[in-house]
Amino acid sequence: MVDNSRTQRRDSYTVDTLLAVTVRVFNERGYDGTSMEDLSRAAGITKSSIYHHVRGKEELLRLAVGRALDHLFAILDEPGAASGPAVDRLEHVVRRTTEVLLLELPYVTLLLRVRGNTGTELWALQRRREFDQRVSDLLAEAVGAGELRADVEPRLATRLLFGMINSLVEWYREDPDGSVAGPAVQHIADAVTTLAFSGLRAAPRR
Amino acid sequence: MVDNSRTQRRDSYTVDTLLAVTVRVFNERGYDGTSMEDLSRAAGITKSSIYHHVRGKEELLRLAVGRALDHLFAILDEPGAASGPAVDRLEHVVRRTTEVLLLELPYVTLLLRVRGNTGTELWALQRRREFDQRVSDLLAEAVGAGELRADVEPRLATRLLFGMINSLVEWYREDPDGSVAGPAVQHIADAVTTLAFSGLRAAPRR
Repeated sequence: MVDNSRTQRRDSYTVDTLLAVTVRVFNERGYDGTSMEDLSRAAGITKSSIYHHVRGKEELLRLAVGRALDHLFAILDEPGAASGPAVDRLEHVVRRTTEVLLLELPYVTLLLRVRGNTGTELWALQRRREFDQRVSDLLAEAVGAGELRADVEPRLATRLLFGMINSLVEWYREDPDGSVAGPAVQHIADAVTTLAFSGLRAAPRR
Repeated sequence: MVDNSRTQRRDSYTVDTLLAVTVRVFNERGYDGTSMEDLSRAAGITKSSIYHHVRGKEELLRLAVGRALDHLFAILDEPGAASGPAVDRLEHVVRRTTEVLLLELPYVTLLLRVRGNTGTELWALQRRREFDQRVSDLLAEAVGAGELRADVEPRLATRLLFGMINSLVEWYREDPDGSVAGPAVQHIADAVTTLAFSGLRAAPRR
């Protein structure tokens, strides 16, 4: 008979479920402020059980921000982002970026908070800049095509766009069971897209 | 003859200049992470010299965020915010809020980062909510007057607006001498106002 006298929870984690716990703790305490001990306590398994899944804290960070980055970069390969007028591709990217942020909220939140100087953090910052640059290029293309107004400089417009989208992590909250709460994802994505492309002003009466 | 043997810098601070040093340290280390010792070192004067000006750390916080709040609330009393169609008053408030954020950058940054549970922090959060509510009411008034589109819910629109404006603290930097750098304040305020009210899409050709 197997000795099963350890009182702690049996390790039934996969890397994915361990990651969900990890991301919550990283977002609460900050990456720097989180120890393997903290993760072990939050997951209810020993540190060596965690080391069974990953090499350590930095690999958990890489997997977590990697998940957010994979979702974001995948948007750029979607059909709506790949063909058609630049303005329509940009609108698709803005809408889908908003949706990904809300649906992958803890992972994108962690990505947006990355600062620091570990290799993984520098890599994440670099990938974020690449994504922003791709969107900025698309925006510039739409300006060049006369589809977007030329009086707002593309890099500044991109920063303001992402400023608006990324600010959602400051107030949007999932339900405790992980489902989305408050105004539905679609509703918020519509509002962001409308505001970004058409502005708040009512169309003049005809 | 006065004994002037202390080697440290003579205290030539006023509350205002002491506040400028304090806000820089609070923004670098966080309010919780800053000790009176840190402030003494940064200012180059003794702790008792600081206590000559203020009662302590929390009073410095109150003065600093109070400065940001005073500037923000003053906008609501400006002529451009006080009369005319609601949409024009809102546009004035959006433009001026952007300008105040950039011109009072360290103070507004500190205000936006206030979390915590001291009386002063709770007071600052409460005042911020009041300001947001005033803007949200103005936005709802403009929707009611048919000046703004009705398909974006006013509270959500207000959050997205402030999300865009407040994101400036993440990347906008003053020159080291305290003057403004990068795209001029007016240029950014124009971009924010254009994006918010008219959107990025080029006007259709007539």
